Amino acid sequence: MLKKKPDRKQDRSRNSKTKKTKKTILIMATPVKVYGPPLSTAVSRVLACLLEKDVQFQLLSINLSKGEQKKPDFRKIQPFGQVPAFQDDVISLFESRAICRYICEKHPEKGNKGLYGTNPLAKASIDQWLEAEGQTFNPPSSVLVFQLAFAPRMKLKQDETLIKKNEEKLAKVLDVYDKWLGERRFLAGDEFSLADLSHLPNTHYLVNATDRGELFTSRKNVGRWWDEISSRDSWKEVVNMQKSG
Amino acid sequence: MLKKKPDRKQDRSRNSKTKKTKKTILIMATPVKVYGPPLSTAVSRVLACLLEKDVQFQLLSINLSKGEQKKPDFRKIQPFGQVPAFQDDVISLFESRAICRYICEKHPEKGNKGLYGTNPLAKASIDQWLEAEGQTFNPPSSVLVFQLAFAPRMKLKQDETLIKKNEEKLAKVLDVYDKWLGERRFLAGDEFSLADLSHLPNTHYLVNATDRGELFTSRKNVGRWWDEISSRDSWKEVVNMQKSG
Ligand SMILES: N[C@@H](CCC(=O)N[C@@H](CS)C(=O)NCC(=O)O)C(=O)O
Ligand SMILES: N[C@@H](CCC(=O)N[C@@H](CS)C(=O)NCC(=O)O)C(=O)O
Repeated sequence: MLKKKPDRKQDRSRNSKTKKTKKTILIMATPVKVYGPPLSTAVSRVLACLLEKDVQFQLLSINLSKGEQKKPDFRKIQPFGQVPAFQDDVISLFESRAICRYICEKHPEKGNKGLYGTNPLAKASIDQWLEAEGQTFNPPSSVLVFQLAFAPRMKLKQDETLIKKNEEKLAKVLDVYDKWLGERRFLAGDEFSLADLSHLPNTHYLVNATDRGELFTSRKNVGRWWDEISSRDSWKEVVNMQKSG
Repeated sequence: MLKKKPDRKQDRSRNSKTKKTKKTILIMATPVKVYGPPLSTAVSRVLACLLEKDVQFQLLSINLSKGEQKKPDFRKIQPFGQVPAFQDDVISLFESRAICRYICEKHPEKGNKGLYGTNPLAKASIDQWLEAEGQTFNPPSSVLVFQLAFAPRMKLKQDETLIKKNEEKLAKVLDVYDKWLGERRFLAGDEFSLADLSHLPNTHYLVNATDRGELFTSRKNVGRWWDEISSRDSWKEVVNMQKSG
C-alpha cells in the first residue's frame, strides 16, 4: 500500500485536544486518511464533510501533475485513478459523495448531527439533492471550473463553444434552484445538509476564480443561499487549506 | 397535483395477492406512485428496484414526446421537468438513485433484503459503486444510448464525433470494471445490490438495441456479470413492461 508520510502542516488530527483526563478509558481514535490535494473539488467536498462532522483526519498528498493518481498502488484503493481516496480502520473507499455519506453514517453523534438528516424522510430529501448536485449541477459546473479556472493556470487553450454550452446549461439549472430556494432556506429544508455542502467546491471556484460569479450572485435566492453556506467555518477552513497547499 | 388515472395494464399493485385470510389486522398498503414511461432508463431503474423489493406500485404515464414532463403541475414534484418522479403517503421525490435508496431504507424487510446492504460497511461499498455508476459509467453510456438507440427511432441525426469520444471513454471505464469484477462476483461483493441494478437500464439498450454490445460481451468478467444481473426476474419484468409500453 501507499507508504507516504502525512504532511505535518496538513495534519488535522486533533489528538492533543482530545487528551482529556477523564476517568473513562480513553480510546484514541486513529485519524482517517484522505488522499489527494485540497485544491481538487472532489477532495475538498470530503474535507468539508470531515470538518463539519469534527472527525479527525490526515491528508496524504497525491501529486496530480506528476500523475501519482494513476500509479498501480493508488489504483488499489481508487481503481479509476482519481482523487480522493479514503481509508479508516475498517474500509477503504472512493467517490467523494459516497465517502461523505459513510462519514455521516459512521459518526451520527459527532459534530453537525443533522448533516445527513436525523430521520429517514430528511435523509431522502438530502439524497435527492445530493443526486441532483451530482447529476445535474456538477456536469456543467465542473466543465466551467476546468475551462475557466484551471485551463488558464495550466496554460491550456480554452474551448469557447464548450464554455458557452455549459454556461447556458448551468443557467437553466440555477433558475430551478432559485425557484426552489425561494421556498426554503436550504436545499433539503430548514437545515444545512450534505446536499448544500456538496455544491461548495465548484461554486467556490466559479464565484471566486472566474468572471462568471454572477451566475450565482445575480439570482436572488441562490445568492442568499451561497452567502450563507460559503461562510460556514468548515468551508472557510477548507479554503485556507487550499491556499496553503 | 396530477390527476392522471393509473394505467390498468401497468398497475403492478398486488392487492389481490396480499388479501390473505390471516388473523392479524390487515393493513392494505397503498401502492407507491411512479411517474414516467418504463422505456426511460431512469424510470426503469426505479421499477427494477421496486420489483426487487417486492413493493407495490402504480405507474402513471407521462408522455415525453408531448412534453408532459415540463408542465407546471409535474414540475411541482420534479422541478427539473424530467422523469421519474415518485410519491408515497409521506414524501414525493425525484432522482432515480435517491428514490431507489429511499425504497430500500423504507422497506428493509421486504423482498431482496440485502439490496442496499445489511450493515454500514456493505452499504458504503454499494454507495461507492452506485456513485461510480452515476458519475463515471452513466455519462458516456447515456450519450451512447441516446445517439445509437434513440436518435435513429426519433429520426435525429447521429453525432459521430460524440459517439466515438464516448465509446472510447466507456471502453476505459469498462476496463476498470473488468479488472474489478475479476476479483468479485458483483460490484460490491458477493451479493447482487443496488450498485449492479443501477447499471441495468443503459447496459440493456447498449447490448440489445445497438451494435456496440461487444463493449460488454467481449470483456470476460463484465460479460459474465452482465449475463448474471440481466437474467434476474425483476429485470426481465421491466423489459416486458418496456415492450408493452
Ligand atoms: N466522481 C469522482 C470524481 C473524482 C475526480 O474527478 N477527481 C479529479 C480531481 S477533482 C481527478 O482525480 N483528476 C485527475 C485525473 O482524473 O487524472 C468523485 O467525486 O470522487
Ligand atoms: N438524474 C435523473 C435523470 C432523469 C432523466 O434524464 N430523465 C430523462 C429520461 S431517462 C427525461 O426526463 N428526459 C426528458 C427531458 O429531459 O425532457 C434521474 O436519474 O432521475
